[in-house]
Amino acid sequence: MGMRFKADGVKQYVAKYYTSCGADAEWARKAAEVIVTSDLFDIQTHGIERMKDYHQAVLDGKLVPSAKPEMIQETPVSALVDGHEGLGHALAVWCMELAIKKAKTSGVGIVSLRNSNHYGFAGYYPLMAIREHLIGFSVTNTEGLMVPTGSKEPLLGSNPIAFGMYAEPYPFLLDMSTTVVPGGKLSLYTRDGKKLLPGCGLDTEGKPTVEPAEVRAGINSKRFGGILPLGGLGEDYGGHKGYGLAMMVEILSSIIAGTNTSNNIRRFDKHDRNGEFFVAMDYSLFGDPVEMEKNLSMYMETLRNSERFDAATPIYTHGQKQFESAKRNAEQGIFVRESTYQEQLEVARAAGFDAVPYFTLVESDS
Amino acid sequence: MGMRFKADGVKQYVAKYYTSCGADAEWARKAAEVIVTSDLFDIQTHGIERMKDYHQAVLDGKLVPSAKPEMIQETPVSALVDGHEGLGHALAVWCMELAIKKAKTSGVGIVSLRNSNHYGFAGYYPLMAIREHLIGFSVTNTEGLMVPTGSKEPLLGSNPIAFGMYAEPYPFLLDMSTTVVPGGKLSLYTRDGKKLLPGCGLDTEGKPTVEPAEVRAGINSKRFGGILPLGGLGEDYGGHKGYGLAMMVEILSSIIAGTNTSNNIRRFDKHDRNGEFFVAMDYSLFGDPVEMEKNLSMYMETLRNSERFDAATPIYTHGQKQFESAKRNAEQGIFVRESTYQEQLEVARAAGFDAVPYFTLVESDS
Repeated sequence: MGMRFKADGVKQYVAKYYTSCGADAEWARKAAEVIVTSDLFDIQTHGIERMKDYHQAVLDGKLVPSAKPEMIQETPVSALVDGHEGLGHALAVWCMELAIKKAKTSGVGIVSLRNSNHYGFAGYYPLMAIREHLIGFSVTNTEGLMVPTGSKEPLLGSNPIAFGMYAEPYPFLLDMSTTVVPGGKLSLYTRDGKKLLPGCGLDTEGKPTVEPAEVRAGINSKRFGGILPLGGLGEDYGGHKGYGLAMMVEILSSIIAGTNTSNNIRRFDKHDRNGEFFVAMDYSLFGDPVEMEKNLSMYMETLRNSERFDAATPIYTHGQKQFESAKRNAEQGIFVRESTYQEQLEVARAAGFDAVPYFTLVESDS
Repeated sequence: MGMRFKADGVKQYVAKYYTSCGADAEWARKAAEVIVTSDLFDIQTHGIERMKDYHQAVLDGKLVPSAKPEMIQETPVSALVDGHEGLGHALAVWCMELAIKKAKTSGVGIVSLRNSNHYGFAGYYPLMAIREHLIGFSVTNTEGLMVPTGSKEPLLGSNPIAFGMYAEPYPFLLDMSTTVVPGGKLSLYTRDGKKLLPGCGLDTEGKPTVEPAEVRAGINSKRFGGILPLGGLGEDYGGHKGYGLAMMVEILSSIIAGTNTSNNIRRFDKHDRNGEFFVAMDYSLFGDPVEMEKNLSMYMETLRNSERFDAATPIYTHGQKQFESAKRNAEQGIFVRESTYQEQLEVARAAGFDAVPYFTLVESDS
């Protein structure tokens, strides 16, 4: 059960929330843009559903909306930035803007961010680069929730990898956690009473389970249990590869930023202080960018038009579904569950304003 | 059945082969170092087992050992290099040396190589960076052998990702194909009469099979069949993620180099002309490198010492097994199967020399 609201109003609501908590208008707008773009892309798990978590983080003093980034170390191709536990989304947009600027003058821009907070859906940041005809790349570490191959302990984050390049009619946009199933599936499946497939998670004793709530309990225990890496349990289907990718993300996001590794996030002092990593690269360094984009577009078309495994199921390229959703949702409104809507009314009330005027109904499917 | 030979002699044999085919001494030595390091690491599938394939490629005129790299476009942080279908391993070493040099002066070095040939085990190139206390990254596309999610056609390569950073007592060194099982498993399992697990490959009709020979037949058909992406069949276990990673590799290796995408390699004219991509990054751009290496070493130790899923099975970090093998094989000799040894005698004979003096027996396990 839910409703469809105009995206612009919801963006203004998110921005209003953050300005009410001390962010300036520009900073709040950056965060709102990321969060509501996630809903436009039908990635609800990283959209306004999360506002209640962010609100709680603000109350807990671990998310400081007024905090601004501090430049620690800079070269023409790089920057190390301290986020001072500010607004993850806005900090990340700021860092990617910086990477893009450096890429335009030096060919490549690499920005490392320490002491951050959850930055939403990782794909947003490469998307910023794609719009400028640059390759974009971003990774982040998260709360420990992935169990390394051969272990029982949730020592790695969901550690997403996001990467993209411009193409027609859709860009290539990869945004994937390095776990076998995304963390969001646990709450979704618990709510819907569904079971996980075998080989996706371990329970609080570190034993295989198909119960999403038991996997979540394992993560929350900070002791045993969690989601398995992409490739599943053991090495038979390449679980060690998902584990390795998560480690690559960990190195790029936390180790070189000198900030919390995933096993320490929310473990002792409840703070995140996670790390993020942003790259923009100008591919005209390697030839004619128009030619490259044409070749990529053709290649992706070849994939989409190849012989289907199942005649009734289309072959997608990465980003295609999201861009199709965004186009539809821009017209039809973004989908908001009834319970999520009620949460926003409470969050806004706590922040001292009324959310109702920001939510303009487009259509109800309930 | 096999024998153990001193690695140094085998390196000299490989170098002798390539100088006999027109490579200069330095070029041949570079290639030999990559190939025999693969055997030292117990990655036999990319070691001297491949010499008969490389020899065939030389005979076919698609691998030109005398060809030298040509600089097409260069900046302080980047280079586009044409390999002119030369010796893949040597070209790749040359490109990574260039990336390292750029990283030392500009912070980062990014090199794109077009018109290359098989460059052996991808992990060698990050390893070169690791020795210089730089982060190393390399990807390459290959012959089309991976079926994208939802398709029947082998349109993507095994498209490995290699990444590494210095740590004690072992570096972190990830070297993984983005397929659910490595291509080398097909011939290995066929030889040993073993079956694949379900969900690893499609046959020449594009239907699931557990027969490795049928998957290989699919790849060879260039029509239907091949290995599935990391994550397996469909999206249930994240097959679309392996597919997405392979596409990321394709963009970085072939699209921006303006060279053959995997679906075209060995398809029409039998040439590879694949692309490769090399990055070296100086992490002192982001703080104290010694501190970062210490933090990574500690984190990896935490993983290795965490509670085991199965008490009898150790938890490994990536690269650990390979470095342990290399240490052992440097003393005990590299393992060479009897049939592989016989092949070398033939390859050398065809190149006009006698291989026997280069193979110094250490120990026989037959």
